[in-house]
Amino acid sequence: MDMFIGIDMGGTNIRVAKVDANGNIIQQRKEPTEIVHGTKHVMQKIIRMIESIDDYAECKGIGLGVPGPVDPAEGKMLLATNLPGFEGYPIAKEIEQHFHKPTFLENDGNVAGLGEAILGAGKGKGIVYYVTISTGIGGACIIHQKVVSGKNGHAGEIGNLIVDRNREKVNNLNIGAIENEASGTALTRKAKKIFGEEAIQHAGDLFQLAREKDEKALALVDEMAYDIAVMLSLIAHVVDPDIFIIGGGVMQGKDVFFEKVEKNYRTLIHNGMQPVLFAQAELEEPGIVGAAMLPMAYLSK
Amino acid sequence: MDMFIGIDMGGTNIRVAKVDANGNIIQQRKEPTEIVHGTKHVMQKIIRMIESIDDYAECKGIGLGVPGPVDPAEGKMLLATNLPGFEGYPIAKEIEQHFHKPTFLENDGNVAGLGEAILGAGKGKGIVYYVTISTGIGGACIIHQKVVSGKNGHAGEIGNLIVDRNREKVNNLNIGAIENEASGTALTRKAKKIFGEEAIQHAGDLFQLAREKDEKALALVDEMAYDIAVMLSLIAHVVDPDIFIIGGGVMQGKDVFFEKVEKNYRTLIHNGMQPVLFAQAELEEPGIVGAAMLPMAYLSK
Repeated sequence: MDMFIGIDMGGTNIRVAKVDANGNIIQQRKEPTEIVHGTKHVMQKIIRMIESIDDYAECKGIGLGVPGPVDPAEGKMLLATNLPGFEGYPIAKEIEQHFHKPTFLENDGNVAGLGEAILGAGKGKGIVYYVTISTGIGGACIIHQKVVSGKNGHAGEIGNLIVDRNREKVNNLNIGAIENEASGTALTRKAKKIFGEEAIQHAGDLFQLAREKDEKALALVDEMAYDIAVMLSLIAHVVDPDIFIIGGGVMQGKDVFFEKVEKNYRTLIHNGMQPVLFAQAELEEPGIVGAAMLPMAYLSK
Repeated sequence: MDMFIGIDMGGTNIRVAKVDANGNIIQQRKEPTEIVHGTKHVMQKIIRMIESIDDYAECKGIGLGVPGPVDPAEGKMLLATNLPGFEGYPIAKEIEQHFHKPTFLENDGNVAGLGEAILGAGKGKGIVYYVTISTGIGGACIIHQKVVSGKNGHAGEIGNLIVDRNREKVNNLNIGAIENEASGTALTRKAKKIFGEEAIQHAGDLFQLAREKDEKALALVDEMAYDIAVMLSLIAHVVDPDIFIIGGGVMQGKDVFFEKVEKNYRTLIHNGMQPVLFAQAELEEPGIVGAAMLPMAYLSK
């Protein structure tokens, strides 16, 4: 079976794995990124980690997922807030020249979406829109198993979608941006205001109160479920996907809000769009497995 | 030069043309659709119109644009409000079997967007989002010169995008749907309320008042320009296009609102997305020329 190298290049850790065409992780390495030692140090580390994988030379290609928007054609990050020094650095080219293997770079959200589209809940679907609700909210548009990165690497930056103009200004995102209304961070902020700093450490505390039928918690969850439904309706009228796949840490509270999201969503779209499917993300390791799927997707016709 | 047949199959008229690969209309036919005489009558008419074109047999393929969502793989309309009887009718297959030429069917908005992407303002661009502001508001997503139709043929049904939840309910579209806030119909409705039934016949009357610096007209145009900017920002965060191409009858008032739209838009996106281009639609006959581009686009690799 064909093997690929997947790399999850984060601000804290770098993970490198050999992954087979079915998405099984055969061998894995993990080391701290140590970005403070500079880009050269990090690049040498990645090369060394790949070379420590058994039979790495037999792999068909290499894929990297990185935190931030990228230019996939150039194999460069366009913005590298969590990997200072790597903005504009020819990451993919340097690895490709060292190993003489086709090497692909993508945003980590897009990589996770690609993994879900090829191996997870989106298997066999034409248009997959992947949404991750975590500290922030991000997305990925995968059409026929290819990532739509966008002109400036910003396709899927759905955290900035305006779901309601009449909200408070929170940060540099748009007023009423979904990330400020329904992400884990946003839910924590809103719940703290209602229940106090002590009672709420994270969104999970809000969900627990909702499970206990606290009325204020239920109202906040209802608002969040409606906001997310509006966001999904915005995406749907733009690209009309076969399936929405929802992942991210906030999905740990899915028992409280997920059905409400879908129910609201179906009131916000045309009748003809009702066949769309809703699914939860399935992959345990979307970052590294999705990265390995980049060469698989782009080397096939 | 390669020639193609383009067909604009509307509720009122059918137009058939021979179009060259540069988008020049070489020969054209136009007849009333006469849908009251049934689908067979209309299909026979289309076939006869094609056969009346000089050297039609030398054309490489046939493309049809139709009003409503389609299943392009099946070559069928999914909803045929303006062509009763044609819902689910194998239009493309029947024409293909008669002429033994590859035949493609698409929604008329998508066809116009494809024309603009291949021959018009979007020439050479990777991701083109075409927006038409007319009686209604519609769009088309063209990626690498292929139409993204969507799972249910509803990609680009952007008229239903919510730009502000806090508006009045107008019809079966979403509350605050852009089509009810900024289309020609919507502008006429809103302007009539302010200036009276007599003063306003169509959106052009509002634009004329704005040109004369009427304050209430300017305020309404400002609102419209902001609403459209919000709509474009929603599209941009989903697919991050290279270019927005705006067409449709309301663009006759572009001197009054178009710059305002772009200025507002640029405050509603991430810095990294600023390179996006704004353009006006260029094709004089996007419907029929775009239809002829369907076989050209899909027969090429």
